[in-house]
Amino acid sequence: MQAISRAAALRNARTVLSHCVKQNRFDTLILDKLSVDEIERPGVVKCTMAVERNHLNLTGTLHGGVSATLVDIVGSLAIAAAGLESTGVSTDIQVSYLAAPKLGEQLVIRGFADKVGKTLAFTRVEIATLRDGHDQETLAVRGSHTKFVRGIQRMANEK
Amino acid sequence: MQAISRAAALRNARTVLSHCVKQNRFDTLILDKLSVDEIERPGVVKCTMAVERNHLNLTGTLHGGVSATLVDIVGSLAIAAAGLESTGVSTDIQVSYLAAPKLGEQLVIRGFADKVGKTLAFTRVEIATLRDGHDQETLAVRGSHTKFVRGIQRMANEK
Amino acid sequence: MQAISRAAALRNARTVLSHCVKQNRFDTLILDKLSVDEIERPGVVKCTMAVERNHLNLTGTLHGGVSATLVDIVGSLAIAAAGLESTGVSTDIQVSYLAAPKLGEQLVIRGFADKVGKTLAFTRVEIATLRDGHDQETLAVRGSHTKFVRGIQRMANEK
Amino acid sequence: MQAISRAAALRNARTVLSHCVKQNRFDTLILDKLSVDEIERPGVVKCTMAVERNHLNLTGTLHGGVSATLVDIVGSLAIAAAGLESTGVSTDIQVSYLAAPKLGEQLVIRGFADKVGKTLAFTRVEIATLRDGHDQETLAVRGSHTKFVRGIQRMANEK
Repeated sequence: MQAISRAAALRNARTVLSHCVKQNRFDTLILDKLSVDEIERPGVVKCTMAVERNHLNLTGTLHGGVSATLVDIVGSLAIAAAGLESTGVSTDIQVSYLAAPKLGEQLVIRGFADKVGKTLAFTRVEIATLRDGHDQETLAVRGSHTKFVRGIQRMANEK
Repeated sequence: MQAISRAAALRNARTVLSHCVKQNRFDTLILDKLSVDEIERPGVVKCTMAVERNHLNLTGTLHGGVSATLVDIVGSLAIAAAGLESTGVSTDIQVSYLAAPKLGEQLVIRGFADKVGKTLAFTRVEIATLRDGHDQETLAVRGSHTKFVRGIQRMANEK
Repeated sequence: MQAISRAAALRNARTVLSHCVKQNRFDTLILDKLSVDEIERPGVVKCTMAVERNHLNLTGTLHGGVSATLVDIVGSLAIAAAGLESTGVSTDIQVSYLAAPKLGEQLVIRGFADKVGKTLAFTRVEIATLRDGHDQETLAVRGSHTKFVRGIQRMANEK
Repeated sequence: MQAISRAAALRNARTVLSHCVKQNRFDTLILDKLSVDEIERPGVVKCTMAVERNHLNLTGTLHGGVSATLVDIVGSLAIAAAGLESTGVSTDIQVSYLAAPKLGEQLVIRGFADKVGKTLAFTRVEIATLRDGHDQETLAVRGSHTKFVRGIQRMANEK
């Protein structure tokens, strides 16, 4: 995870996300406003997204399926940020729901590439809400996402 | 879970799903073709859905976020089928991905209300693909969905 | 999973368990009374065990760590019952606690080998309590156990 | 989680652990050497333990059941460290296995009380190995542990 620069990691994560959002329907419907903002440290990608109407459940809060989708996608972006050219296939996802973000709230979503091995990658995702005009984050959802990554090429380190 | 008839359980599950699909955007985008077909036995609801373009990921198979959403929703329908008038709030969801259903494949999705207590309900969901023209199902995804159901009314048993 | 007979599957599962219980301390302390009773159908192994003092938590019921250990071991036995000569390395385990078995209660523990692929095996485990003198089982714990099984040999089918 | 001092949180976590290890067999067998070292910040408890023979599986590494037990116990200690007088009943536990600690290795186990609500507490646990003579930790196991804590008293803030 130290092989590539943060700038390269950020570019790679953004490329993977743009492929998702361009080439298929589900990610486009849900994640077209997801922004990959920063590589906070090696293997940790920070994203942001506002809760929109498309993301709501029956009770007007963030749909559990959208949270799970964010655990899926942002875990994958952490793998991309670790330098893999694609992000593999999910084997297991787990999500815990601590609080329910509301329409309009700003989400900070962090993906952590805890381990990127030859066969499996273990990622973790935290979704927090941000108070208006404040920096304080409140954890709302967290998850674990294990992926099968065998045979995927790692980016060469840049000169 | 034996308090209500299968017919009442089926009606209740269909009512809950129709509320989801009518009143908000995410379920409408993803689940408008989900069909609640049958109460196979008390606490077990059988649904079907075909894999559409809207459900695909980058590689052209069922998106992990859609599978997780089905674990969310069909677990909730199992609670509705057990006679609760609404289905509570998710606390934990877990999903294992055994195989990747493809565009056009027919999915059989079963929700099992393993326990519906006063405070928590424990559900389980299995997503299988159905071979064309055959009855044979192949398990593709399975999940666990725990919900907080405190204070939700149970349907009266019908006369 | 249909390659070997039920008798061979049962023998293989028992061999794997006896290796665990003989060669190391943790399994010996916890699982020396675990009995592999039957292959109920291909890929489904039925075990039984009584709740003993060694298995209890502070409140006098089955310790969550013992339940998780049973999900670990009996999931592995299901892989053995599917014909693998050893059972690989865990990648993810999930456990839901529906009820708390008490001292002296008889447990029925079933392991299901939902899929045994070349690289990953997906198993599921259910722990139920048995009413004294009755056949009725009540589900107490269920779990999911994913294992890495690459390179493990499959038993030859017997003549 | 800010209501009690770190010293009180540490005392409370140690009291809960000593109850576990004194009053029942399973924790005594497995956890008698577990040490609650420090409250690193509010809601975060740091423990240490060496891998002993009792903790090993068939292949001579940390048993998956022991790891799951540590997720169970240290998640509970985080709740105690947040000021609850007892730590409730598990509803869901999830564990991911990134690496396999070996006999004699020193484990650093951190429990995080991500949220302690009126009914549910959400905790997370990380198990890392420590290189001999170094401070560098390598993450080996991580887990999530949700508990039902309704009706448990919170410690009064000390004067």
